[in-house]
Amino acid sequence: MDYFTASPKPANLDRQVTLARAFIQQHAEQHRRVALVTSGGTTVPLENQTVRFIDNFSAGTRGATSAEYFLQSGYAVIFLHRQFSLLPYSRHYSHSTNCFLDFMTHNDAGAVVIESEYQQQMAKVLDQYRKAKRENTLLLLPFVTVNDYLWLLRELAIQMQPLEANGLFYLAAAVSDFFVPAARMVEHKIQSSEDYHQDVTNGDGDRPPAAHMEDKRLIIDLDPVPKFLKQLVDTWAPRSMIISFKLETDPSLLAKKAKGALQKYSHHLVIGNLLNTRKWEVLFVAADGSERWIRVPLGRRTRSVTGKDGDTIENAEPREPSIEIESWIVPEVAQMHTEVISKGKVEMQRH
Amino acid sequence: MDYFTASPKPANLDRQVTLARAFIQQHAEQHRRVALVTSGGTTVPLENQTVRFIDNFSAGTRGATSAEYFLQSGYAVIFLHRQFSLLPYSRHYSHSTNCFLDFMTHNDAGAVVIESEYQQQMAKVLDQYRKAKRENTLLLLPFVTVNDYLWLLRELAIQMQPLEANGLFYLAAAVSDFFVPAARMVEHKIQSSEDYHQDVTNGDGDRPPAAHMEDKRLIIDLDPVPKFLKQLVDTWAPRSMIISFKLETDPSLLAKKAKGALQKYSHHLVIGNLLNTRKWEVLFVAADGSERWIRVPLGRRTRSVTGKDGDTIENAEPREPSIEIESWIVPEVAQMHTEVISKGKVEMQRH
Repeated sequence: MDYFTASPKPANLDRQVTLARAFIQQHAEQHRRVALVTSGGTTVPLENQTVRFIDNFSAGTRGATSAEYFLQSGYAVIFLHRQFSLLPYSRHYSHSTNCFLDFMTHNDAGAVVIESEYQQQMAKVLDQYRKAKRENTLLLLPFVTVNDYLWLLRELAIQMQPLEANGLFYLAAAVSDFFVPAARMVEHKIQSSEDYHQDVTNGDGDRPPAAHMEDKRLIIDLDPVPKFLKQLVDTWAPRSMIISFKLETDPSLLAKKAKGALQKYSHHLVIGNLLNTRKWEVLFVAADGSERWIRVPLGRRTRSVTGKDGDTIENAEPREPSIEIESWIVPEVAQMHTEVISKGKVEMQRH
Repeated sequence: MDYFTASPKPANLDRQVTLARAFIQQHAEQHRRVALVTSGGTTVPLENQTVRFIDNFSAGTRGATSAEYFLQSGYAVIFLHRQFSLLPYSRHYSHSTNCFLDFMTHNDAGAVVIESEYQQQMAKVLDQYRKAKRENTLLLLPFVTVNDYLWLLRELAIQMQPLEANGLFYLAAAVSDFFVPAARMVEHKIQSSEDYHQDVTNGDGDRPPAAHMEDKRLIIDLDPVPKFLKQLVDTWAPRSMIISFKLETDPSLLAKKAKGALQKYSHHLVIGNLLNTRKWEVLFVAADGSERWIRVPLGRRTRSVTGKDGDTIENAEPREPSIEIESWIVPEVAQMHTEVISKGKVEMQRH
């Protein structure tokens, strides 16, 4: 059975699509390019009333940072993000290591003011944020589950079709490869003790619910998510430029898997990255088979978090790039997009 | 085998314990009560180089809000929280529905200033935040995995023993009941396709790795987490007041499960709550068997998020309490703590 026939439509989908339609129409009229940037991880709930879920690692840094550089490059951005993940602009002050309350103080008159040493940086961020609001070039649309994400991606792609080659898909979200079909989802929190009644009525024929107890162990049995990228390229967005991301932990697999994805889906670009080095190097694998690393220099931009938040960030990532790698990725992508658009125009003139 | 023998010690544990030791010593000398407030969900990584993990639903609202009221009631607070979950004070401006950038503007001189209508609320939050910093009454310690959490809880409890009855445990974190033992954890991202080499060497005798592919399905097979609350009450913190939380989705189970936990672990109080009503009602079940609901009135404090963030919060929780329920919970708890302390003193005089 088709995924969308078997999976419930999210309650707020229509409202989100209405917002997107108006946004896309405005920018289509202004002949502005529109990038759909996806960001953050999708969840796979294990119960309908969700207490436990499977998640994919992603704070949303790649997506939120890239969105800012797309805006800077003249794009309008639909930011399809995991609810409460990092957002463009506010990301600069979101984490506990850079709490905006630390930048504030009282002046002599008792008013809350921003300390002078932080004024310049904050003014720059605020200017860009207000410009995006004023020109209505940034639309924030949240998702939580992989089901929310798949429904939204399909509907937004269809809404973006009138943009033709001016539409760009930059799929930085960490989307689950597995899910729990609605027919095998239990209603209530799975009880860890056998003392309590367990709802096991919601199996699917021979198979038990996707998450259930066996002895004292929790067994979770997930189905593969259909390969939506194939449908996006072939059916939902056949005229747009499409860029996917590939995150691996094993360096020996990265290039092979990125090439494999391009061969399988025939889109424009795969940006490969490794979990441990993703902030300073990415691998561009293009449709013509070319491979190119983009690397930013590593500097001493160490964050001082000692004594406040236990220092986990420094431990996990001792090296820091001296510039944001997205400031190099996005202009490259925009340049490739220009080529795709010109090529599309040449092809149209030939016909 | 004992959990802590079989599970690796977190890399930053010693540093966190050092911070806690100094903090506890300061407040022991000042005869201040110390509450360990746990907050947010723990993760269960499926790979050593973690791309996928299981999570427990919790934004950290209960913990972050309660921590503020404990500070207001004169406690020092160790805030043991999921990294990047909500924090006391900054929580008021953390979510995308209340972005602090929306509260700022430029004045005539070009400086960034806070809009006058938001001054009063922000001044109040900032005052409390700065007071906690000045008096060093709030220590933020982050965790990510359930393993981080268990190691920290044990070490902090031991460090808090000199506080005797002045120590309070307020266990609001959503801790996983299941985990992946180190011996059954794979190193790299689990590959969804059979085309790629899979690391299956890390099984444990007869059992395969806890997460592995079977056909095209992902199978996850988790072991139960040992009942750490038993150890906390009996061994790690025998003189402290201990409060646990019980979150359920099925109303018919809540009281029964809360009572069951008290009988099993013999601590002081279980605060029960239901996923859908947790912001306006909780059930206190005390060691003497008494049950009491605490309910705050529901008001019209609806947040206006339309047109910006797709409105998911309003959809999920149409009703909003008119006051924060933690402003009622925490003073009740502090009162019970006073009684536990007096009782402890009477018992000591008797001996």
